[in-house]
Amino acid sequence: MSKIVKDIISNRLAQIRRGFKSNTDVFLVSSLANTRYLTGFTGDDSWVLVTGRGVYLITDSRYTEQDDKECASCKIIERNCSMAGAVAGVLKKQKSVKTVAVEKSLSLAQFAALKKSCDVRFKQLAGIVQGIREIKDKTEVSAVRRAIVIAKDALAASIKYAKAGITENELAGRIDFEIRKRGAVISFDTIVAFGANASRPHHQPGGKKLKANDTILIDYGAKVDGYCCDLTRCFVVGKATAQYKKAYNAVMSANAVAIKMVKAGVKISDVDAAARAVIADADFPAYGHGTGHGLGLEVHELPVVSARTKDKLQAGQIITIEPGVYIPGKFGIRIEDDVLVTQTGCELLSKSCQKMHL
Amino acid sequence: MSKIVKDIISNRLAQIRRGFKSNTDVFLVSSLANTRYLTGFTGDDSWVLVTGRGVYLITDSRYTEQDDKECASCKIIERNCSMAGAVAGVLKKQKSVKTVAVEKSLSLAQFAALKKSCDVRFKQLAGIVQGIREIKDKTEVSAVRRAIVIAKDALAASIKYAKAGITENELAGRIDFEIRKRGAVISFDTIVAFGANASRPHHQPGGKKLKANDTILIDYGAKVDGYCCDLTRCFVVGKATAQYKKAYNAVMSANAVAIKMVKAGVKISDVDAAARAVIADADFPAYGHGTGHGLGLEVHELPVVSARTKDKLQAGQIITIEPGVYIPGKFGIRIEDDVLVTQTGCELLSKSCQKMHL
Repeated sequence: MSKIVKDIISNRLAQIRRGFKSNTDVFLVSSLANTRYLTGFTGDDSWVLVTGRGVYLITDSRYTEQDDKECASCKIIERNCSMAGAVAGVLKKQKSVKTVAVEKSLSLAQFAALKKSCDVRFKQLAGIVQGIREIKDKTEVSAVRRAIVIAKDALAASIKYAKAGITENELAGRIDFEIRKRGAVISFDTIVAFGANASRPHHQPGGKKLKANDTILIDYGAKVDGYCCDLTRCFVVGKATAQYKKAYNAVMSANAVAIKMVKAGVKISDVDAAARAVIADADFPAYGHGTGHGLGLEVHELPVVSARTKDKLQAGQIITIEPGVYIPGKFGIRIEDDVLVTQTGCELLSKSCQKMHL
Repeated sequence: MSKIVKDIISNRLAQIRRGFKSNTDVFLVSSLANTRYLTGFTGDDSWVLVTGRGVYLITDSRYTEQDDKECASCKIIERNCSMAGAVAGVLKKQKSVKTVAVEKSLSLAQFAALKKSCDVRFKQLAGIVQGIREIKDKTEVSAVRRAIVIAKDALAASIKYAKAGITENELAGRIDFEIRKRGAVISFDTIVAFGANASRPHHQPGGKKLKANDTILIDYGAKVDGYCCDLTRCFVVGKATAQYKKAYNAVMSANAVAIKMVKAGVKISDVDAAARAVIADADFPAYGHGTGHGLGLEVHELPVVSARTKDKLQAGQIITIEPGVYIPGKFGIRIEDDVLVTQTGCELLSKSCQKMHL
């Protein structure tokens, strides 16, 4: 673990402690992205106990070797019993722990086991770590940037296979392979949808074959050092219908208008409304999903970019902008870019592909 | 939805209703594999309410088109509000609902939202659906069989790329691609570990390059119609050390001895102990993970094949058998097969690769 990473993690822990210390002795962190954020540990099935002074990573023998390398600043506890039992063991060795905060992402089963094993008072804490995670530091932005470079290169290398006869599933597999070949992993299950399949925003790629004059929607992302990007691109193989062209231009324009509005201090719901207005003005139906979302260690993080969000944008957030037009039975178009919010506007980390035709 | 699938799902629902009906009016199913099991719906972010007579799938606009096709036997509720709000809406339209059972996999946040939105008494139910899912019907066994055929073909097509210089990450990507090319998806993140990396049972493939006389561990699986397989194979590129050969033979033997014991009525902990005895007899350290686990819609299902499990094997379960030897700094070997438990013994669905050398 480099000194820079150690410093970053110490800083995060200091923020967390300020968040819970007033009325809680120990904070139990159980969600995967949060344990990684606070320790650097990249495995799963491991929980973190943050006390006033120490950090304990409770893991199992599959990971102990890995922990020793990655988590120099934690005390590693290899558990031989249930997770709840191991938590009880650590708490017993602390002085006078009365109140333990848990994350609200904990399951009812996990919470019941903890209450049974540990003789302390539990509190539920929501979103402390997620709130801090919203604002990305330079190292995090750099990882997202590298993920975007790999994702774009991987798509460029894959799209030449998008010829009549290839299945959605094979094209998705090709993209995933090109991402791994470049040293990254995928950040979520790649969506490849041909023709009318794209009108379902979360279509799962299947055996459908590409035809002449077909349309393609690809929603995918690479993950580098744990950090995700999330991009959607649409193409036409051959000749586009007039309706498709009109919809494509409307979505491109909605994407551009929303990105232009992004700036620290702007109301998030206004960004959402701006994208929707362009789609409505072009007489296309409203899309059923949000206009975007934060991304980082998870592909969906805070903030949610939608009409219901009351917050304002903050410098250091990385968000997607992804308006769409969906015509059931015909096609679906979504164009998604990743932007870094700054004090003066935003930095477009990914640049939309301007080429509708392959 | 075919008549056979409809009948299967009706039968599952009848079993579920017998499980909860005595003191609960409605069962709220929120976990992904369980909602699929009870409705056939393949999307996510959707919950199912099973009442005495009806089945309601609460989903959002991203999925409504998909639901109409897949879930002929459910009433589809497209939600425009929070999930908890939508649940409240469905409950209000039912006659005299007093008690609603929820799954213990529900998060504390989700449970709090439900309690706030719905004026009913909540009960927590654990494992009803999981218990029924343990016993696979013919359709389910057939899907796992097809997943295994694809996984084995994909490995055969990929392993020829295992030449000096390839990275773990690229070889993992190649396997994933070959799985998708054959119309399946991966059932979990493929593990490819070279040399000493394999001593960490859950190693994440990275940039390490394959060398002459290196060893390879590959733990991977394909998923067909939602059903997973899970296989681990180990290879030597070139010359194996005497210690590796001895360990490989011990693991092969432990795998075979355990599989031979599998039969309905046998204590699960005895199967675990049999595999461990072989490894201990060969003077290798005990492996820190279980000897196996159930698989199906999820890659890890009940039963857990370990010393702590008190149950007996039942006909219709599909379990993995995966003993291993891990020597930190040197190598790791795990050989994993999938078997169907029967009344008279078991059927080895995957056959171990007997070839240690590439």
